[in-house]
Amino acid sequence: MRIAEVHIHNLAIADPPIRSSYGLHQPYALRSILELKSDDGVTGIAETYGGEAPAAALEALKPRLIGANPFRLTGSLMDLIGGEGSGDARSQTMLVPGENPLDANPRTYSAVETACLDLIGKTLNVPLCDVLGTRVRDAVPFSAYPFYKHAGGGGEGDDKREDEYGEALTPEGLVAQVRQMIATYGFKDIKFKTGVLDPDIEIETVRQLAREFRMPVRMDPNSAWTVETSIRVGRELREELGAHTGGYLEDPTATIDGMAAVRRGLLAEGIDVPLASNVAVTCFADLPEAFAKNAVQIVLCDHHYWGGMRQVMQLAKICQVWGVGLSMHSNSHLGVSMMAMAHVAAATPHLTYACDTHYPWSQAKDEVVLGGRVPIVDGVIRIPERGGLGVELDYDQVARGRERYAKCPYRKRDDTAEMRKHVDPTWERLLPRW
Amino acid sequence: MRIAEVHIHNLAIADPPIRSSYGLHQPYALRSILELKSDDGVTGIAETYGGEAPAAALEALKPRLIGANPFRLTGSLMDLIGGEGSGDARSQTMLVPGENPLDANPRTYSAVETACLDLIGKTLNVPLCDVLGTRVRDAVPFSAYPFYKHAGGGGEGDDKREDEYGEALTPEGLVAQVRQMIATYGFKDIKFKTGVLDPDIEIETVRQLAREFRMPVRMDPNSAWTVETSIRVGRELREELGAHTGGYLEDPTATIDGMAAVRRGLLAEGIDVPLASNVAVTCFADLPEAFAKNAVQIVLCDHHYWGGMRQVMQLAKICQVWGVGLSMHSNSHLGVSMMAMAHVAAATPHLTYACDTHYPWSQAKDEVVLGGRVPIVDGVIRIPERGGLGVELDYDQVARGRERYAKCPYRKRDDTAEMRKHVDPTWERLLPRW
Repeated sequence: MRIAEVHIHNLAIADPPIRSSYGLHQPYALRSILELKSDDGVTGIAETYGGEAPAAALEALKPRLIGANPFRLTGSLMDLIGGEGSGDARSQTMLVPGENPLDANPRTYSAVETACLDLIGKTLNVPLCDVLGTRVRDAVPFSAYPFYKHAGGGGEGDDKREDEYGEALTPEGLVAQVRQMIATYGFKDIKFKTGVLDPDIEIETVRQLAREFRMPVRMDPNSAWTVETSIRVGRELREELGAHTGGYLEDPTATIDGMAAVRRGLLAEGIDVPLASNVAVTCFADLPEAFAKNAVQIVLCDHHYWGGMRQVMQLAKICQVWGVGLSMHSNSHLGVSMMAMAHVAAATPHLTYACDTHYPWSQAKDEVVLGGRVPIVDGVIRIPERGGLGVELDYDQVARGRERYAKCPYRKRDDTAEMRKHVDPTWERLLPRW
Repeated sequence: MRIAEVHIHNLAIADPPIRSSYGLHQPYALRSILELKSDDGVTGIAETYGGEAPAAALEALKPRLIGANPFRLTGSLMDLIGGEGSGDARSQTMLVPGENPLDANPRTYSAVETACLDLIGKTLNVPLCDVLGTRVRDAVPFSAYPFYKHAGGGGEGDDKREDEYGEALTPEGLVAQVRQMIATYGFKDIKFKTGVLDPDIEIETVRQLAREFRMPVRMDPNSAWTVETSIRVGRELREELGAHTGGYLEDPTATIDGMAAVRRGLLAEGIDVPLASNVAVTCFADLPEAFAKNAVQIVLCDHHYWGGMRQVMQLAKICQVWGVGLSMHSNSHLGVSMMAMAHVAAATPHLTYACDTHYPWSQAKDEVVLGGRVPIVDGVIRIPERGGLGVELDYDQVARGRERYAKCPYRKRDDTAEMRKHVDPTWERLLPRW
């Protein structure tokens, strides 16, 4: 089996105006789809970050892909995820995920690895998690992922979407948003994006969510706070976010040293609110220092930028050995990434929390998976009894996504620009803001 | 594809009277071969530690093997390598590898995993290292593995073997042994088993080996020394074993704290002789403490007892991330283990030294691989362009190995008993001895 064709599709998908400490989501999120077609006529697919840079990186790799044996290709590209300039550099806190040049090569590798594994699995009629060889669960739990949100459903002009969830900028608005999301998907956990409003409002919002839904709540202000504010929030929400509830506080403040100071401060008061991270810790090179300083108690993996599925499985083993939890981070995505996340989670024994997903924020009109959106029922995705990822591309939908990409002005994610356009023309990302 | 038949073969192979701090090798080493035969008529094989206990553990697992899908089986057995009583217990220093009850389950898992990967590879005609998916080398380097040795070639009665290497109990004897081994196999590194004679004789032996062969020399006394003796040997052999030469000192003394004290003592004198280990560190649970204390600079993996090939690849990633070297430990073995070691090494990017192998100490008469012994040429094993491990069983030879096992009195490895029988009836293993 050889790879005969390589296709890269740049897509734009409608994205509602949701907020984080990075700013405001633009009307379209950008995603890339990679297709590796074998000389047997089977196609392996992967989804990754979109826009110009990721597609250009995949395009530049084409000469190493064409003609390659998919069983050998992932080994022959290991230079992209080991050694100099290949993701061993350290984390940064200012750029949104997918825009960090330090993990450009691991992101490229990951897309190729996922497409190879899908191609192998589809060729053999073996589910991808069984190609990885360590499936430990058939159903993968995901969390509700509420955001503070302005009115609007995403898209622009004739392509504007219905506003499925409506505005949510108050505690009551968030409770309504979560109620709707749980009614649709059956989630059993809540991961709440914060760092947007005054911490006292966000504290009150968490309290209302915990009281209303009586399920684990996790809070992610994306480094928006000082060490002192982080400790104060942890103190005030010790009952809502404490380890005993299955909750956590994610990246309250920037840097490994900042996180370590928050943890020390909370423990000094006898408060066990564990700290999760996908900002202070985003690559393997961060782990020894982060663990030595007790800066993170949960690492949030993401096969898209940690160098692929096998690397995430290695990360999980590391976390298990060091007694650190593991869950999964997410970004705006379609059904191909959704299934990839589900498969790697199914093959990862040490997965200690329900995973994040932005999937509820995308809509059927943008889905590129044949047959429509991936079902999330009772908060879980079931691994289908089909080869590879278990999903195929709907090429009409891919064509529509490419058209939207061609028409829209966005070529990389820029939450600051959107914030200035719609909320405050002088807005700057401040770290810390509170 | 389903597993239709499971066969376990207990073999005895002639083993020459070689010495270590554990004592003296018995005339036969014991090995087990596992066969998993699919309903398509393809057979996957693995070799592991022999004798009664490993075979009984595999036998007890049969109900979970028969009828299983080999792509799913390794996932469904993950309980053997995670959680309580499954290799997460800590290391011990008194028992020889393969006799440590703390890693019984990981050893059982490893045999099943190797046989599944071989079965998958043979079914698909894909080399095993490409089933693992991260092949980074086509040729795997191994080291010469000289031992202090009494006269004799192993075997008993009519089954006595020719003494290929002769007695070697002096520096000159060891030089002659290594010369012969290098002439036959082309090794480019020397791993020297010590802890047998007075340290001054062993120091002189290392000096003569280094002077004569001008290649990296590694010295392994298996915990025979005090911290003080270890530091003295490191000091005297700083030029022969130093990091700048590619050498190391392996398990000079027992326990993580002992190793850490040796490292501190050497560094305090400005001596960079790195310490390797497969005694102080034998399982994942040892790593955080060992790294935090800087007790080991090289971990010696072994897929047989670390829980299999994928676990060894995860160990290698851990070592890479923490800046620790990785090489491979060995025990008396046949060609099936030889190829398994070569494949996992081929698929492990972070392999920083030539691997150990006892293969020169076994003979063609005992080999169970069809076509005879695995070739080591210029010190490397090349990955064959064949499916799975690339070797098949010679069933006549398996039958002879079973006959030898039935006839011989040995049911577990006991180097102390042999030492008492042939060298000193009062011999006890002393840690430390010097």
